[in-house]
Amino acid sequence: MKTAVIGSTGYGGAELIRLIEGHPHLELAMLISTSQAGDALSQAYPHLRHLAYTFQELDIAQIGQEAELVFLATPPGVSGELTPQLRAQGKLVIDLSGDFRLKDGRSYEDWYNRKAAPDKWLAEAVYGLPEWFAEEIRTADLIANPGCYPTATLLGLLPLLQHRMIDQRALVIDAKSGVTGAGRKVDQSLLFSEVNENLRPYKVDGHQHIPEIEQAAERLAGAEVRVRFVPHLVPMNRGILVSLYAPMLHKYTTTEVLHMYEEVYEDAPFVRIVESGWPSTKAVQGSNFCDIGVHVDERTGWITVLSVIDNLMKGAAGQAVQNANLRMGWAATAGLMQSPLFP
Amino acid sequence: MKTAVIGSTGYGGAELIRLIEGHPHLELAMLISTSQAGDALSQAYPHLRHLAYTFQELDIAQIGQEAELVFLATPPGVSGELTPQLRAQGKLVIDLSGDFRLKDGRSYEDWYNRKAAPDKWLAEAVYGLPEWFAEEIRTADLIANPGCYPTATLLGLLPLLQHRMIDQRALVIDAKSGVTGAGRKVDQSLLFSEVNENLRPYKVDGHQHIPEIEQAAERLAGAEVRVRFVPHLVPMNRGILVSLYAPMLHKYTTTEVLHMYEEVYEDAPFVRIVESGWPSTKAVQGSNFCDIGVHVDERTGWITVLSVIDNLMKGAAGQAVQNANLRMGWAATAGLMQSPLFP
Amino acid sequence: MKTAVIGSTGYGGAELIRLIEGHPHLELAMLISTSQAGDALSQAYPHLRHLAYTFQELDIAQIGQEAELVFLATPPGVSGELTPQLRAQGKLVIDLSGDFRLKDGRSYEDWYNRKAAPDKWLAEAVYGLPEWFAEEIRTADLIANPGCYPTATLLGLLPLLQHRMIDQRALVIDAKSGVTGAGRKVDQSLLFSEVNENLRPYKVDGHQHIPEIEQAAERLAGAEVRVRFVPHLVPMNRGILVSLYAPMLHKYTTTEVLHMYEEVYEDAPFVRIVESGWPSTKAVQGSNFCDIGVHVDERTGWITVLSVIDNLMKGAAGQAVQNANLRMGWAATAGLMQSPLFP
Amino acid sequence: MKTAVIGSTGYGGAELIRLIEGHPHLELAMLISTSQAGDALSQAYPHLRHLAYTFQELDIAQIGQEAELVFLATPPGVSGELTPQLRAQGKLVIDLSGDFRLKDGRSYEDWYNRKAAPDKWLAEAVYGLPEWFAEEIRTADLIANPGCYPTATLLGLLPLLQHRMIDQRALVIDAKSGVTGAGRKVDQSLLFSEVNENLRPYKVDGHQHIPEIEQAAERLAGAEVRVRFVPHLVPMNRGILVSLYAPMLHKYTTTEVLHMYEEVYEDAPFVRIVESGWPSTKAVQGSNFCDIGVHVDERTGWITVLSVIDNLMKGAAGQAVQNANLRMGWAATAGLMQSPLFP
Repeated sequence: MKTAVIGSTGYGGAELIRLIEGHPHLELAMLISTSQAGDALSQAYPHLRHLAYTFQELDIAQIGQEAELVFLATPPGVSGELTPQLRAQGKLVIDLSGDFRLKDGRSYEDWYNRKAAPDKWLAEAVYGLPEWFAEEIRTADLIANPGCYPTATLLGLLPLLQHRMIDQRALVIDAKSGVTGAGRKVDQSLLFSEVNENLRPYKVDGHQHIPEIEQAAERLAGAEVRVRFVPHLVPMNRGILVSLYAPMLHKYTTTEVLHMYEEVYEDAPFVRIVESGWPSTKAVQGSNFCDIGVHVDERTGWITVLSVIDNLMKGAAGQAVQNANLRMGWAATAGLMQSPLFP
Repeated sequence: MKTAVIGSTGYGGAELIRLIEGHPHLELAMLISTSQAGDALSQAYPHLRHLAYTFQELDIAQIGQEAELVFLATPPGVSGELTPQLRAQGKLVIDLSGDFRLKDGRSYEDWYNRKAAPDKWLAEAVYGLPEWFAEEIRTADLIANPGCYPTATLLGLLPLLQHRMIDQRALVIDAKSGVTGAGRKVDQSLLFSEVNENLRPYKVDGHQHIPEIEQAAERLAGAEVRVRFVPHLVPMNRGILVSLYAPMLHKYTTTEVLHMYEEVYEDAPFVRIVESGWPSTKAVQGSNFCDIGVHVDERTGWITVLSVIDNLMKGAAGQAVQNANLRMGWAATAGLMQSPLFP
Repeated sequence: MKTAVIGSTGYGGAELIRLIEGHPHLELAMLISTSQAGDALSQAYPHLRHLAYTFQELDIAQIGQEAELVFLATPPGVSGELTPQLRAQGKLVIDLSGDFRLKDGRSYEDWYNRKAAPDKWLAEAVYGLPEWFAEEIRTADLIANPGCYPTATLLGLLPLLQHRMIDQRALVIDAKSGVTGAGRKVDQSLLFSEVNENLRPYKVDGHQHIPEIEQAAERLAGAEVRVRFVPHLVPMNRGILVSLYAPMLHKYTTTEVLHMYEEVYEDAPFVRIVESGWPSTKAVQGSNFCDIGVHVDERTGWITVLSVIDNLMKGAAGQAVQNANLRMGWAATAGLMQSPLFP
Repeated sequence: MKTAVIGSTGYGGAELIRLIEGHPHLELAMLISTSQAGDALSQAYPHLRHLAYTFQELDIAQIGQEAELVFLATPPGVSGELTPQLRAQGKLVIDLSGDFRLKDGRSYEDWYNRKAAPDKWLAEAVYGLPEWFAEEIRTADLIANPGCYPTATLLGLLPLLQHRMIDQRALVIDAKSGVTGAGRKVDQSLLFSEVNENLRPYKVDGHQHIPEIEQAAERLAGAEVRVRFVPHLVPMNRGILVSLYAPMLHKYTTTEVLHMYEEVYEDAPFVRIVESGWPSTKAVQGSNFCDIGVHVDERTGWITVLSVIDNLMKGAAGQAVQNANLRMGWAATAGLMQSPLFP
């Protein structure tokens, strides 16, 4: 299937290229970058110097002729403009940006501080979390690939909401991310010397992934969910760990809860329940896995859920390919069963 | 004042040596290490090869003759045995281990899984958190230096409890530490290749610093406090960040709470309230500072407190020297006003 | 082809498992570990918890029945004992240790400080550097997989010797390695806190890879080669960079030398000549590539060659699989064309 | 002594502030930054939020009134313009940039690609390497503080040249630096995700520190010196390691050479000769020490010298203060005897 990647000079774009190159059914037909059109791929990404691609200008008509599937790995606002044009040409669109994740345009405008895409397209878009919304994804033509934090959070949280095990009014989500989560943005705060040997919270007063988490959580909870969510920047390249805390509504043991998770994710090839030890980000590095661990604290009656992903894989490019697999009826794991790179 | 350091081959011991060397009133009289007695200091710590010390055997009688102040940076259980002997000789003891922090011996035995020190000595020991318990420390002869996590946690938490601002029954403490917090223990899980590019929780089912936090919190709260506390290992050498979450009992703005913290710590030279931006571990690296930031989330009515220290300084050796200064009536900042090392 | 891995609990072993799992012609039949026999693979390597293998005891007879190809990723001396037994059963052996790399048993004994394998087997072994010794490898039954430093060094050096471009008597090899090069050895000097934010030389007075480099270099140089070789430990997990310095015998431009390298490695799918910019270890991370850059300094008449590999891939497991491909007549790139993981 | 720092927003500037704050004879009178004039120091450097300084505009007349000693930590070319004005006011100037290090203006223009300072001032400037040129520094009014690489290189190299022990025509200098050596420049190649887990050479075709090394080396060698010098970027914040290789002119043992170094540096409080083990960058972190190790390879007759410094201390701000101490007749170690921060 001929595939175009728009916004291919970011880290998510580079990861998409790596995955498409190794995928049995996808073929990389066009690499589009408005900022580096005309450059060889290896100028932006020397690690890919064995591949002979050149970045192309954005030309919707040409995409119409040369590609069937389009991945958008673009900054906020870009996809909101391009997607209607691509859909008008009948292309299947998988959007890795946040432009189509929120159903409510006003919420998007509040949290992203920019104009939302038209309601019609927000309504058409399907939230691409395959473990929970597979039915909708199978027939979707516009798939909003989830954010990295929401992916790790929701895979850990939704089983508890579905089973009415926790009081969702006292949810605390303490999230930690490697630095690639910020993209390839050239900013003083992301320089090596500033980040290395440093741990710091950021966007403590509000991160745009909050409404995305709440929207999906409310579908399962059947009630309003308002979360406390604080992200932290960790001196490492890849990986997200979400630590989730909530009071339990009834008494359960850790073992009982683990069994529940095992059942919920029985058919999910990328979710691994951790029964011995605890999840760690390195154990999923470079892979599409999400590892989940659980602990019920009997002293306090609270549960802790620990969920890890590689933010560029299950948190971005890997999940996008997983959505493509699901939509096209291919094996869920096609092109995605690389074992993690360790160490 | 002639000073002995027992257990001087760990990271905390090395940091004590660095501080004592630069202190106007302390003189390093004895370096004691049972495991490396007879070795030059530079064999264990090549960075100190300009200092000509040799590790000595433990000999209580000799300490009696050669030192007035003894810092114990020993593994759990050692101080519980040595301290009564040192006190019997009239020495001033500052213990960096956990052996004298808990007033209740049974609690110690539950959490540390070893025999507690005799009740008499547990009763004599004073908890050495100078910003809160200065009166007691000024006359104490046995000072239990707080743990690294409790120090960062309590400096952030106690103002809220003192002012009855939060519901202490729903406290969540998500703690993150650099790797020196684990000491110089030779263990596979602490190898560079295992820790680097990795983030992982540990002791999710119970960390021995929990009762220490609760004991001090209850003094201020005047009520039972039971905390959810999960520590995480971060790929960096130094630094602790504690992220504390709690529901507020009344409506306050972030600014109001910041003012309250400013007042509480007005005379505390090592606590810096962060009014713009957020605390980061690197901003206190190598120093005795504790930086505290606060955010009230008006959507949910919860408060987030962010507290950072250098675990080897304010979390161990620096605080020990601060306690010595307080006890001896020296300037609080004597030997401790190094600016942080950045970057 | 049924494959056994002996010594599968080290980092090289784990990388072999990852590669065999994704290889079109290899099947992992036996995982052998004397130290962890009976354990699940996921106990040693949680990142592989989606694979259901169990470590087995070493049982030569059983290997005889269940495997055709044996990879040995064992400590020095082990392979020297096991290989004759495995060869006696007609198994194809690829040895990742140093036991069969040196043709001269006395040299092995000098540098490795242990007894060499019998001369008969040293004579049978073929040095498995596919880019240079493919003819011999194609018919070999005992392949001595090169060391990580020799691989990076020789791929950079041999073209210069073959073309008689440098004075090999003044060769300087300054080598730098990530920490996985030291294996999973539990040693104080490899703890995170000791290695992180630290750069240090080691084995300055002699590294066992020196005679291996000299032996292969002499085959191409047709003369004695004695190298100055100093390895350094770099605070990162994976990657080797070798910086090679030598006086040129005649005047060449950088461009001329680059063309020579291009020609030499025209048919080598894993060698990428870097014509713009310089090689970097991250550009080959997780892949079997070796990137080589060159600079002729016209001020001094010396050449600098810069060669990078992933020490666990082209420097160990990847090259072992490449040797298997070559020996079996499969495509050189079978199971090995993963793009590097970046960042 | 009232001191001004110009260019105080870079890492070198921040380190100067830290040192001046702790110095017994220096007082920080003015912090000058053209880019951040009017800002509080803590906006650029939150780790210094306990200090209440504000950046000021550059105003030569005001400096004339308020300061006696001026440190310039400015980008190339700036000092060349400001220094004559400051000297005209009779100020003592210590310049941390490269503008006054080369005696030959044409060489500066070749290597720095910008106009040199007037010959008169180049002639007046004294090269501030205290261990070798103390006599000149004691009476200098314009001190050119050496570059980081030249400092580490020359301290290791000059004893060998002084004693005519090596053939200086075959010198190889392989240099490795932490990332702060590049300053606080906001550049994609210095982003955390690009540098972390990466090792790469840079400026292989010529670094501006080459003529500086050669100029000082020739003073001791009494002959032309042309060095091969390749710098590498190491994923750590601080530290330089220079590995120096040269053929020896006569037979010496490692022990003999070590004794020679001991004698040469007998009165140098910041040079520590490493007799057991090898130097490592972490052993000097945050300090003004230079650790030097030596190895004579009897197989090849070459010597390897290993020299480490903290690039922001002995390689910049620390050495600048050392020069001030020497010039003013204060103790060499005044304000500079901090033990290294470990780990």
